[in-house]
This record gives sequence, C-alpha cells and structure tokens, in this order.
Amino acid sequence: MKFHFLGTSAGSPTIERNVTSLALTFEQKSSWYLFDAGDGTQQQILRTSLSLPRLDKIFVTHMHGDHCYGLPGILTSRGLMSGSEGKVTIFGPKGIKKFIETILKLSHTKLKYPIDFVEVTQSETVFEDENEKFDCVKLSHDVPSYAYVVQEKDRPGAFDVSKAKAAGITSGPLYGKLTRGEKVTLEDGREFDGKDFVGEAKKGRKVIIGGDNDSPELLNGYLQDAEVFVHESTHTVDVKENLVWKARHSTAASVAQVAQEKNVKNLILTHFSPRFSLRVIDEDDSSMCRIREEAEGIYKGNLNLAQDFDCFCLNRQGELTLEKRKAVKRRKS
Amino acid sequence: MKFHFLGTSAGSPTIERNVTSLALTFEQKSSWYLFDAGDGTQQQILRTSLSLPRLDKIFVTHMHGDHCYGLPGILTSRGLMSGSEGKVTIFGPKGIKKFIETILKLSHTKLKYPIDFVEVTQSETVFEDENEKFDCVKLSHDVPSYAYVVQEKDRPGAFDVSKAKAAGITSGPLYGKLTRGEKVTLEDGREFDGKDFVGEAKKGRKVIIGGDNDSPELLNGYLQDAEVFVHESTHTVDVKENLVWKARHSTAASVAQVAQEKNVKNLILTHFSPRFSLRVIDEDDSSMCRIREEAEGIYKGNLNLAQDFDCFCLNRQGELTLEKRKAVKRRKS
Repeated sequence: MKFHFLGTSAGSPTIERNVTSLALTFEQKSSWYLFDAGDGTQQQILRTSLSLPRLDKIFVTHMHGDHCYGLPGILTSRGLMSGSEGKVTIFGPKGIKKFIETILKLSHTKLKYPIDFVEVTQSETVFEDENEKFDCVKLSHDVPSYAYVVQEKDRPGAFDVSKAKAAGITSGPLYGKLTRGEKVTLEDGREFDGKDFVGEAKKGRKVIIGGDNDSPELLNGYLQDAEVFVHESTHTVDVKENLVWKARHSTAASVAQVAQEKNVKNLILTHFSPRFSLRVIDEDDSSMCRIREEAEGIYKGNLNLAQDFDCFCLNRQGELTLEKRKAVKRRKS
Repeated sequence: MKFHFLGTSAGSPTIERNVTSLALTFEQKSSWYLFDAGDGTQQQILRTSLSLPRLDKIFVTHMHGDHCYGLPGILTSRGLMSGSEGKVTIFGPKGIKKFIETILKLSHTKLKYPIDFVEVTQSETVFEDENEKFDCVKLSHDVPSYAYVVQEKDRPGAFDVSKAKAAGITSGPLYGKLTRGEKVTLEDGREFDGKDFVGEAKKGRKVIIGGDNDSPELLNGYLQDAEVFVHESTHTVDVKENLVWKARHSTAASVAQVAQEKNVKNLILTHFSPRFSLRVIDEDDSSMCRIREEAEGIYKGNLNLAQDFDCFCLNRQGELTLEKRKAVKRRKS
C-alpha cells in the first residue's frame, strides 16, 4: 500500500505545498483512491505516475475549498482521457453531490462515465466488499468533517499444491475445499484437514486518514490496531494559542498525544498552516522543525511530516517507509 | 500595460502548461485584472509578483472548466489575505453568479469582501469610467463565449506650468481652464489658448482578449486600431481536419488570416491543444513549431506564441515586447 501525498498545506497553497490531497494505491490492483482534492490537485497528479482513468473512488473529508475545489478539474480531465469509461464513486459529506453536479452542469460538462455519490452524515460503514471495508468517523471541526478508516480484509494463505499432490490428492473440487480450510475424506478413507495445506493468512492492514479536526481522540476507538494514522497538524500549541480566530484544528502535540496513548506504529502529520515552511532554518518559529519538535517530544513511534510528492510504502508486515521525497532547498528565513 | 500569461493550455493542463488564464496590469495603478482562471491558477499566481488583494476585476470568457474552475480557489485565498477588503467585480456569461455563489455556499466560505457580478448575454459595453471602457463581443463556440475589448481612454497632455508662469499667468482657476484646453482672458486684456500650454494627448491603447471561438472574423469590427490581439489557436489546420469530434476552435491559420487582413500590429496566440509541446523538436507534428509555421506563413506582423509565465509589455507607442520568459528544456519526442 502506498501513500502519495499530493498536497499538504492548510487553507491556501504555498510555493512549496499545494492544498490537501492524498492518493492511496495497492499492491494487488491498478485502481486507486483519492482522499480530498484541493484546487490544483490534477496538476500535482500530472507530476506522478498516477493514472486518472484508473481512479475509481474519491473520499472527501469535508467541504472546505482546500479539500474539494480540485475535484471538478480532475473529473473533467479524466473524462477527456481514453480508457476512462469506468464509474467513479465519490464519498463525502452532504452537499458533495450538489457541488459536483452544479459545477458540471454550469460548465456544460458531460462526462462519458457515471459518478455515484455516497453522502454521509454520521459515523458508519460507507463501502464493503470481499477485499476491503471503509468506515467514516465523525470528527470535530467548524463544518461536518470525517475521517476514513480503510480496512483490508484478511486474505487466506496460499494453498500448497505440491504438498497436496505429494499426499496423493488429485486436483479438482477437493482442492477448493482444502483451500477454504475444510476437512475432506478421500475415497480410500484417508482424512485431511485444509489448514495443513494452507499457509498463514495474510492479515489485512488498517489505515486511518483524518479530515480537519480539533479532537483527534475521537479516533481512539479505531487506532488500537491501525498500521498508519494520517492526521492534520495545522499548528503548534504556541501558534494556536496566539491565533485571533481559533479555528478548530489540531496541534502537533494533540495528535502526538493520542498516537502515543494508542501505541500507533506509524504517524503521518499533514495539512500544515502556510506559516510553517520547509525552507527556513530550525531557529525560526516559522520553520516546520517546530512541528517536528513538538510531536517528537510526545510521540515515540515512527513519526513522519508529509511533504508534497512524498510516497510512503506500507508493507504487509505493517512497516512504513518513505520511498520517495522531492528535494527542498532550505534557506535562512 | 503588461500581459502575464498564467496558463496557455486548452482543455487540460500539461506538464508544461496550465489551463487558461491571463492577468493584465497597468503602469498607472496597482489594481489588476484577470481574464479566465482554469483550475490551478492561484498556484500560478503564487509564482509571480501579482498580489491577490489588488485583483479587482475578473473577466470570464466562457463557462468551460479550463477557463473558470480556478476562480473559487482564487476568491477564497484572496479572502484569507490581509488588505483584501476591496470589492471584486466578476464579468462573465450567464451562470457565473450561480457557479460562484453555489460553490462558496456549499464550501461554507464567507468572504470578507463583496463580489459584484455582471452577467453578459450579448455584445455590449460592460464597464466604463473616466479611464477605460470594456466591451464584450459575442463569439462562436460550443457554449456562449465572449471576447473582451479593453479600451484605455485618451489622456490629456501635461500642462506646462513654467510656460504659463513665463507668460505671467498666476496659478489658480485659470490654470484649470487652460489645462482643459479652454481660452482665457487676463485682467490686462491678454488672451491665451489652453492648447498652447498643454502637451500632446496620450492616446489610449486598445487590446482584445478572446475566449474560445471558431470564427475570429467576428472581431473584425474591433481589430482595426487594436494594439494587441490575444486569441486562442487550439489546433493547426491539419490537426483540426483529422479530429473525430470537431470542437469549435480556431486554427493558427484562421487567426493569422484575420490578423493579417486587419493589419493587427501584435498578435499573441494562446490556448494550445495539449498535443502541441514546447519540448519536442521541430520535425515532430506534436511540436509547437507547427503552430508557429502555420501562423507565420500568413501573418506578417509581430507574432507571439504565449508560454506559461510569459510577461509581454505594451508601451504607450503600441510596441509589444516579451519582457520575461521561463526557460523550457527541449527534447526529442
């Protein structure tokens, strides 16, 4: 599973960060999912290997512009590409359907593929099939905002054909039964247990991708066995305390606290206020280092601060590594 | 007067061009105007010296997404900046008001400045004050589309104070009359004609900025004395003839023909199909050189093919020069 950060800025883009968007890709399939899409996300996608026709699910955490203004451009450009006839499903808060439909209509845009909308109003399962399950969890923000919990289902271990053959079991319906872990009796009376022929089950991974939220503890019930926790960290405590307008956002400390208490293995912070820059030196209060310091003081797991175009890889053992990062030149503020 | 090209691609962005947008700035004022804003235009603006709080008029040629999807992000980011309390007026086809208002409402966005909307349905004057006049001209496209004609008013020449003093005319109301070119009689009976004290009037410039359009000759009545003509040139003739879906766009040849017939001094082509690349070599049919060749064969004036971040300067004598251009690496296709 890979996390492709397409935008990591809060509110407005900066010269080094676009507004929020995150793509999720999987080892076993070519289709991929998008979580939020601020203005300019399609231009970010152009600079990756992600293919728009293969985008088939979009999850919108909330309706603020820095999380959804990029959707119409993505949907329209997707429609101009060959091989994009497949349906797109958009999950999001109430209003997302009217938002997309009004824009497409007023801009005279007729897509060649269908869009399904799933509007959410409470914490619930929004999608489930044999491979995965998506729950949304209501958060606390100035407007309705949600986290999405992506849960892969456990996959049965591989069937050991050579072992079955060696035991003299002939291929056919018996193999199917053994694969499913059932017991079978051969015509000669011998009995076999499927679990002796099937390798260890592959445990599904769980990742949580939060929207804007001032109360990360709302996710406590989901964090215990999650492999990755992606959450906004708009401010440091100092900065938040001195804001004239107290926006309902998290601090690095508040997210780190929850992640530490719940033993989260891998934490990725994103959605940083434009005041925090990657380019300025550590001593400056507008340096991203302030966010890192604050989180590091509390959270002792694998801490990551996302940058645009970061690609993190989560393996099946639940280890998260930064696979690719674009260089950023640092300078004195 | 300066033309800042923020996006020069048709339909979808490419790795080298964003979708359409053009900013116009003036020598005598800090406010500036924006013509169209495809998705991602605010990110382009970030990479220029243009200041969003000083943007006070936006002209939308038509409602296709590659010309207007960037507006909500621009308006929202402007609202987050200090000094942005001033009104913005948006001129555009019917639907632009509903488009902006629906998006702002559904994204819970309350701007701290007012927006005035001027919706156009026919060729008419959309704005006029003592300094300038804006006309819109109906074009021919798949959806209602307009060109905007920017006409600076002539400005009176400077009053020669030292000459008036030398003639023994004392400052006060008489100076005002002379400045306006009136005749005055002094108490001693001497008569003076204002025109002897006022320098040559500064002629206002006229520029035409077109929207998507398959019939550039619709602008014939406006081109005769225009200093600059900016028009889409989506395809070459060859490419257009082989398109399965005949979009109602201009070719380099059709725009060049009109510009040549009307003796246009300065022509700037923009809005190129993504198939034309700056980076590929001349021999390739997907090279931008094909557009240039086709236009050069017909139009003998000052021909320019706009690139993103090009800044063209039009002086008061009507001479257009390319002031700044970002380097683009060329490569074999």
